[in-house]
Amino acid sequence: MKFTLEAQDKASKARAGSVETDHGTIETPIFMPVGTAGTVKAVHQRELKEDIKAQIILGNTYHLYLRPELPVIQKAGGLHRFNGWDKPILTDSGGYQVYSLAGTGRKINEEGVVFKSHIDGSIHTFTPEGVMDIQRSIGADIIMAFDECTPYPCEFTYARKSMEMTHRWLKRCCQRFDSTSPHYDYQQTLFPIVQGSVYKDLRVQSAEFIAAQDREGNAIGGLSVGEPAEIMYELTEVVCDILPSDKPRYLMGVGTPANILECIALGVDMFDCVMPTRNARNGMIFTTEGIINIKNEKWKDDLSPLDPSLGGYVSGNYSKAYLRHLIKSGEMLGAQIASIQNLTFYLWLVNTAREKIKSGEFLPWKNQMTNKLMQRL
Amino acid sequence: MKFTLEAQDKASKARAGSVETDHGTIETPIFMPVGTAGTVKAVHQRELKEDIKAQIILGNTYHLYLRPELPVIQKAGGLHRFNGWDKPILTDSGGYQVYSLAGTGRKINEEGVVFKSHIDGSIHTFTPEGVMDIQRSIGADIIMAFDECTPYPCEFTYARKSMEMTHRWLKRCCQRFDSTSPHYDYQQTLFPIVQGSVYKDLRVQSAEFIAAQDREGNAIGGLSVGEPAEIMYELTEVVCDILPSDKPRYLMGVGTPANILECIALGVDMFDCVMPTRNARNGMIFTTEGIINIKNEKWKDDLSPLDPSLGGYVSGNYSKAYLRHLIKSGEMLGAQIASIQNLTFYLWLVNTAREKIKSGEFLPWKNQMTNKLMQRL
Ligand SMILES: [Zn+2]
Ligand SMILES: [Zn+2]
Repeated sequence: MKFTLEAQDKASKARAGSVETDHGTIETPIFMPVGTAGTVKAVHQRELKEDIKAQIILGNTYHLYLRPELPVIQKAGGLHRFNGWDKPILTDSGGYQVYSLAGTGRKINEEGVVFKSHIDGSIHTFTPEGVMDIQRSIGADIIMAFDECTPYPCEFTYARKSMEMTHRWLKRCCQRFDSTSPHYDYQQTLFPIVQGSVYKDLRVQSAEFIAAQDREGNAIGGLSVGEPAEIMYELTEVVCDILPSDKPRYLMGVGTPANILECIALGVDMFDCVMPTRNARNGMIFTTEGIINIKNEKWKDDLSPLDPSLGGYVSGNYSKAYLRHLIKSGEMLGAQIASIQNLTFYLWLVNTAREKIKSGEFLPWKNQMTNKLMQRL
Repeated sequence: MKFTLEAQDKASKARAGSVETDHGTIETPIFMPVGTAGTVKAVHQRELKEDIKAQIILGNTYHLYLRPELPVIQKAGGLHRFNGWDKPILTDSGGYQVYSLAGTGRKINEEGVVFKSHIDGSIHTFTPEGVMDIQRSIGADIIMAFDECTPYPCEFTYARKSMEMTHRWLKRCCQRFDSTSPHYDYQQTLFPIVQGSVYKDLRVQSAEFIAAQDREGNAIGGLSVGEPAEIMYELTEVVCDILPSDKPRYLMGVGTPANILECIALGVDMFDCVMPTRNARNGMIFTTEGIINIKNEKWKDDLSPLDPSLGGYVSGNYSKAYLRHLIKSGEMLGAQIASIQNLTFYLWLVNTAREKIKSGEFLPWKNQMTNKLMQRL
């Protein structure tokens, strides 16, 4: 993997760059659609590429390990071949899913995590080493360290102990990753994850530890888990200032369009979030003019295209009234259209941010857009 | 509307023709994907056109009347403009839905039908005249007479009385249709429907009555409602022999691939059925090699394309193992892929039948395909 810093905004810490992988180049800042189980929900791979213009998608280790199971993915020659997405893929390590399983009998100890499958209740163990092996089998271009993602709120003592264990786990991840080879004919890279909950001193300590590992890119985890946005921004800035500037910075699980613009201004390069697809299925539509709750009566006979300035087949042709009809009727095509619209918008947002950074107009554009994008139409 | 008979099979009653409408030409025999609520479930309009190569789709009067409601469709300029499908549309009159509503307090009498909305329980009345007006508002190219579709089994006396009422209703439909004009800038045509349950003498009587109305096309209703296939074939043949050969014959709600081939051989030109899309969502995949239950363990690591000889993006690229994973995981993309595959197969089937009729090879091909298509892989 190779990261090139192409432009640095003067008025903020925003930057434009590119990440080269064996499956192609990712232009940053970038948003990565979430494809948990090897599919971005309701979206064909062709639509991801041609309509949404996604450059990299996520997969999830926990889900893919349980289903379709590794032998199937290995027989296919990796996840790209299995699902037919031939551009870069990043896999989340399952740390966040394990955190989500709290209360279902999952047990975290120094060795790793014992958890129950949400599919059949079977018992499984994830260790840092095992998760590296699994991600070698899945074959994502960028794989994530196995961490513990602490909830919000979280006691300082627990947050500190958890962070320290995440650091010890990272050492085990690196050792395993560095002593194994890719299963397929392309390179993989491992990103470590900064933790530390909402405690600034822990975040500083974690960021310094992560930076010192000198991996090819770095991630910030454990944010956007319920804490106020101001706290997320403050900690993101603290961490970004410590993480090396010649490597991409990935803020995990963030966020709203406004969150993304704000964090780009703080120096983040990569984002992912289920919001555009999950909200799409509930009828919340992101557009270049603001947010639409398509279920509202006011859209019932609004025959204007979903987002005319965004253009394209979905945003430019399907009307608000038609989408409302589909969502109200529980028709799958409603979720399909809304998901494409929201992801197209998210990709437009980060691509435009990138252009504005390169042309030196980022900050005023960001401030203007933030107000516009938070507007409820 | 203009029907041209292009070829007549020597060894069977199969025929190839074309139906010209103001939204384009339909080449027969044809299968019409069902788009009940203005959407073929899980399929984009672009995919219908470019991948599936559908030439005409169905809409349903009952559903569209209740939602999005007529004023919205009228404001759009008709259903084509509302859903973005610019090729021909046929609307079912709601007769079949009313039959499906049995036991929910719907009441049929000479005037029409009083029924409860499945959406909000509100009370509505459909009369032959009202249903013509509604279909004028929806704006389908081909609209259907308002009939009573009898269940199977059905007492002879009820079947006869119902058929006679359907005939009286047809008179009212024709009168209303012929005394009104299209709401939009294209022509519409009205197809009457042969009823008579499984009683040959009633079917003969009904077919003669329908033929005598001299409309531009004719339909056969009330079959494929649970009766044995042999009875359906026998009655279809009786009716086809009476319906004029210079007009298209539409067999409503039929059926399996084998049903379709058999009925093409009996002189049917147009078909519709929810089977390809409904079964798709349950993991039953129609292919040119036979039927696949994609949930079966045997497909778990079968990485071959869904239906390589059918080609195209969906049938040629997505693997059986990937589709199985999606369907087993309840992922929407599974229903999307399966629906496109099944509809692509159905359109391939009728298009190939058409070619074989034109080249004089229909019957042997039909007999060979029927065995192949009923095979469980
Ligand atoms: Zn998120
Ligand atoms: Zn059917």
